[in-house]
Amino acid sequence: MKGSLLYEGKAKKVYHVTDQPERLILSYKNDATAFNGKKKDQFEGKGRLNNLITSRVFDYLKLHHIPSHFIEALNDTEQLVEKTTIIPLEVVVRNVAAGSITRRLGIEEKTTFTPPIVEIFYKKDELDDPIINDVHAYHLTDVSEQELTRIKEMALTINEHLIELFKEAGLQLVDFKLEFGRLKDGTIVLADEISPDTCRLWDLESGQKLDKDVFREGIGNLIETYELILQRLEENTCAK
Amino acid sequence: MKGSLLYEGKAKKVYHVTDQPERLILSYKNDATAFNGKKKDQFEGKGRLNNLITSRVFDYLKLHHIPSHFIEALNDTEQLVEKTTIIPLEVVVRNVAAGSITRRLGIEEKTTFTPPIVEIFYKKDELDDPIINDVHAYHLTDVSEQELTRIKEMALTINEHLIELFKEAGLQLVDFKLEFGRLKDGTIVLADEISPDTCRLWDLESGQKLDKDVFREGIGNLIETYELILQRLEENTCAK
Repeated sequence: MKGSLLYEGKAKKVYHVTDQPERLILSYKNDATAFNGKKKDQFEGKGRLNNLITSRVFDYLKLHHIPSHFIEALNDTEQLVEKTTIIPLEVVVRNVAAGSITRRLGIEEKTTFTPPIVEIFYKKDELDDPIINDVHAYHLTDVSEQELTRIKEMALTINEHLIELFKEAGLQLVDFKLEFGRLKDGTIVLADEISPDTCRLWDLESGQKLDKDVFREGIGNLIETYELILQRLEENTCAK
Repeated sequence: MKGSLLYEGKAKKVYHVTDQPERLILSYKNDATAFNGKKKDQFEGKGRLNNLITSRVFDYLKLHHIPSHFIEALNDTEQLVEKTTIIPLEVVVRNVAAGSITRRLGIEEKTTFTPPIVEIFYKKDELDDPIINDVHAYHLTDVSEQELTRIKEMALTINEHLIELFKEAGLQLVDFKLEFGRLKDGTIVLADEISPDTCRLWDLESGQKLDKDVFREGIGNLIETYELILQRLEENTCAK
């Protein structure tokens, strides 16, 4: 069923599916990278955790009528998705100040954003993924004004659902990064992954960081942290 | 008439006006700075040129019903303006790619932007004036969504007028930076200066750079260049 390798990214490999040209298999790797690839390591079991966490999150979003590329988890490290052409934008939603925005704009960590801040970055490693505005996006990609408005609305709706999902798991959703892709018919759907690699999650009670910042900042065990996120999601999403 | 010094910036000094608390005098200095103050020099006569050029440009915009702080030139280096509280945003309009955007987004110099690109920067020296989006601006300043929409519309209207003005002077308006201020009653008006310090101007025929890039890049005589801009504006605006 798994065909040839189409593309290898920092965190995933993408394979063709034999006889199903409009589907792909995402295979989650054990690699961890930070600071645009400047910090790198490998963690046995990370691929499994991100695959299972992402699958649970996308299942939850599907229940809430968010169109996405996700079809199903195939096994511990792989998932079946609809083939999309990825739009080279990273859409970041911030509920609370943390990470780059604190340094870039001199905003104190933990400042609450009401309404949430949506930021668009141009996905281009050699430029260090620069932040851009809407008009830049029209110039640099094929998205139209109407489509970008829809993407930002979707990102804010997804934020509301994820805040709820993670709150039930005892976690504060600080910020997260989304990517969108275009199906063969042109429809834009949510793509990529949603995991502790792409979200900042703080324990609701202690404020402890339970995401890739444990790796970025060297302040905890990545596998134990991601395992805890998966457990908490399983406890809460199984009960329904 | 000139009262005490209120503020000294990189290019201008700002004075109170005796008995006119709602007015200020801007005194243009001979200093030139670039790269956020990392490159500095002094040019005898620069203050006069930027004062006279800015006065001409603001007079022209006033004729075209653009509300601004500008009242009149008082002498070679000073102008009388309405007192405003400056909104800490730099509004950049780009018709053609040049300068920072070429490096930031990997866009080739001379690429034409249709429609023009409007960029907003947060005016904060210690952060190197970072580029921001609209939602950042609502968070970092007191501008409302409606006001920022109006500011961007004004910037694009000003662009149309300036393209025309400079074209008649044989110059291509590549990009420029605007600042806006709030009058005592809250109205937002165009403020600051419009000069070869804040605009990129290329000779329409030869493409020669006739603005602060001659200083930034060390490719020409700043005073002779600014003198040429003033002369060309005088020749064209006197004829009307």
